[in-house]
Amino acid sequence: MTRIRLDLSYDGTSFAGWARQPGLRTVQGAIEDALEVVLRTQRAGLASPRLTVAGRTDAGVHARGQVAHVDVDPALWEAVRGRSDRGPQEALVSRLAGLLPPDVVVHRATPAPVGFDARFSAVRRRYVYRVSDDPRTRDPLRRSHVLWQRRALDVDAMQAGAQALLGRHDFSAFCKPREGATTIRTLEIFDWERPSSGPDAALVVAHVQADAFCHSMVRALVGASLAVGEGRRSVDWLADLLVGRLRDPAGAVVPAHGLTLEEVTYPPDDQLASRAAQTRALRSHDEVDALPRPAASSRPEPPGAVAPGATR
Amino acid sequence: MTRIRLDLSYDGTSFAGWARQPGLRTVQGAIEDALEVVLRTQRAGLASPRLTVAGRTDAGVHARGQVAHVDVDPALWEAVRGRSDRGPQEALVSRLAGLLPPDVVVHRATPAPVGFDARFSAVRRRYVYRVSDDPRTRDPLRRSHVLWQRRALDVDAMQAGAQALLGRHDFSAFCKPREGATTIRTLEIFDWERPSSGPDAALVVAHVQADAFCHSMVRALVGASLAVGEGRRSVDWLADLLVGRLRDPAGAVVPAHGLTLEEVTYPPDDQLASRAAQTRALRSHDEVDALPRPAASSRPEPPGAVAPGATR
Repeated sequence: MTRIRLDLSYDGTSFAGWARQPGLRTVQGAIEDALEVVLRTQRAGLASPRLTVAGRTDAGVHARGQVAHVDVDPALWEAVRGRSDRGPQEALVSRLAGLLPPDVVVHRATPAPVGFDARFSAVRRRYVYRVSDDPRTRDPLRRSHVLWQRRALDVDAMQAGAQALLGRHDFSAFCKPREGATTIRTLEIFDWERPSSGPDAALVVAHVQADAFCHSMVRALVGASLAVGEGRRSVDWLADLLVGRLRDPAGAVVPAHGLTLEEVTYPPDDQLASRAAQTRALRSHDEVDALPRPAASSRPEPPGAVAPGATR
Repeated sequence: MTRIRLDLSYDGTSFAGWARQPGLRTVQGAIEDALEVVLRTQRAGLASPRLTVAGRTDAGVHARGQVAHVDVDPALWEAVRGRSDRGPQEALVSRLAGLLPPDVVVHRATPAPVGFDARFSAVRRRYVYRVSDDPRTRDPLRRSHVLWQRRALDVDAMQAGAQALLGRHDFSAFCKPREGATTIRTLEIFDWERPSSGPDAALVVAHVQADAFCHSMVRALVGASLAVGEGRRSVDWLADLLVGRLRDPAGAVVPAHGLTLEEVTYPPDDQLASRAAQTRALRSHDEVDALPRPAASSRPEPPGAVAPGATR
């Protein structure tokens, strides 16, 4: 089989998350259905294409730098080019662009290096959460992926509080509990800033990067930060939550629509296989990502609401 | 009466344009309805607030830097602050944020300087049209305000062709004809570029600035440019169209959703009144903006389609 790496983006608003679920509109389902048409697996009597993804986002969460892989029969891969003089890579991207709905884009399709696994080879994931706390600079054209919140935020306090969480810790206070799953993660970056220029100018933005995230972790970290930023909690509150190793009973998980998976990082090609083996061993007691998840609601949360649902 | 200047943005997707029309969802209607609630004109037995706008955008066109004015009874203006210690400016913005739908945002509400008229005092309008010609960099989160087009564009050719149109000309070749209306305009900027960084990185972007625009002018300029960029027409074609003073029978007016009014510029305060008087005199035979327009379709055009409809 030829392993193909797909780089892709989606607007999560109208999806019940990444993972395929019967009867629901999911990103995985949309891409697999389109791949089945382009690769003609059914006509060849082969199994339908199945995607493995780096970050299984929940309902309403967006992605710009998502990575997935699919294993394809080499003959079908070569056949994708059809009668054109393009290679199968360009042909697949072009044909998927014609078949996929406008809220999913596959940017690149490339044969993966030996040892590559979209999920297990990844060394880190980077998420961004975007908040607008000021009607003066609120952009209605970006409201699908920015949380609008009423009270002004103290970004310095949020940043100070966030720094205390960096490093390797048990993040169970910020994780939706899951039986048999470890909640130890290495938080590499947790920065709050208010950029003065660029695409996110005037927004309040969290950059959150870790080796991996447990379920609902980014949205719980952001929810706790907003409590600090609004002055409802002290700067030390995030550290207190971490040490207490208890999920804050009043801890708000922020709405999904402000969250975007921006980037997944892989090691150099010669370390892909060893990294994958290492991750599989570490996660032997941590089947968070491998377990099927309960069906999530397909209704997008209303902007501004703080919902009890959970996502990364 | 106290004249209030409003600075505002909207996502035009679900609006039948700016101008109030019976039975249709319009930006003017949404804001006027909200102003009526906040200002309590009805309870005071006064006429409903009526907005005058700098750029009357058509159905589906967006705005980030739109400017409008409304004349308000001074007592009602002072009463907006209610029991809060905020001034009426902050109170109005805050209350409108709570009343307006999420696709309209009023950023600022300020008493206007003497002589200010949102429409007639303006010295220039700047529009941006955004196109993506490459699935590798297409962002599904911005698809509401970027035209996705299939063929790759030659931006250098588009830019070269556009430069020939700069200056004061009769733009009837690019205007939807309207009886009794002059089509002479001064095109100050018409630049095509492919930014390598910033919010529009990797897109193909037109910056179009003029003293004013006749109806459908920006979308006709962009449509003609795309024909050049795709190689269907030569670089000289835009200049040929201009000189011919005939609307190109095959000229495509591009879809509305790629177009955003970004900025309206006013002269220094001491020239506001004279500028308004000057504009009124020049437009004595040019009632383009003052005439009621036919009802536009409220259905957003599908991305990628080239519709026969028209807008600025």
